[in-house]
Amino acid sequence: MKRTLIIVAHGSRRQASNDEISELAKKVMKFANGNYDEVMCAYLEIASPSIPQAIEQCIDNNANSEELEITILPYFLAAGRHVTEDIPHEVDRVSRPLNNVNICIKPHIGSAENMAETILAISR
Amino acid sequence: MKRTLIIVAHGSRRQASNDEISELAKKVMKFANGNYDEVMCAYLEIASPSIPQAIEQCIDNNANSEELEITILPYFLAAGRHVTEDIPHEVDRVSRPLNNVNICIKPHIGSAENMAETILAISR
Repeated sequence: MKRTLIIVAHGSRRQASNDEISELAKKVMKFANGNYDEVMCAYLEIASPSIPQAIEQCIDNNANSEELEITILPYFLAAGRHVTEDIPHEVDRVSRPLNNVNICIKPHIGSAENMAETILAISR
Repeated sequence: MKRTLIIVAHGSRRQASNDEISELAKKVMKFANGNYDEVMCAYLEIASPSIPQAIEQCIDNNANSEELEITILPYFLAAGRHVTEDIPHEVDRVSRPLNNVNICIKPHIGSAENMAETILAISR
């Protein structure tokens, strides 16, 4: 089985903000320690790839794999409409057949257990 | 010296999203372990308190302290215009005298050292 993590950010008109996400995806891949074969990023709005584009790319990349597990991580701080409605809606827009592809949407990053500690660490 | 941390979020029309931030502020206060006497939240747009309102409230709360240190933590994932321009601009709008008040703006949460590990932990 192949495992891909797609970090989904909002997307910005500022290229530097989008680049910050792709740099982060590279860093996550470095730390992934065999948990993922691939870490990609996608954007809900404005920037590309969109969520369906990233998922389709991932399915194409793994066309020869027997099974593919795609984990979607909403890189959003609050569980607003983007997280609760828009991201699942975008996932549903994927046009490739999903045989042997399992797509799972995780909680948004703002709900991470260690967010309070992270705030304290960066504010020191 | 008194120390206050103000977590600055974007602010949402969805009350639940704003509540998520105030809950987080309470959690940060619990873990603060003496690093802060007070943890507040403020919103850049839409919700209240605004950044100047929160800072002014904090200065009023600590009117009897000899010295006050206010740490502003931009709770934003990317260093876009909100972080680089709008938050400093809002801090400058404070109308109280700043004698013995030191205000320091920290890097945005998205630049936290452990963000890659946090992504991996929540996506498991």
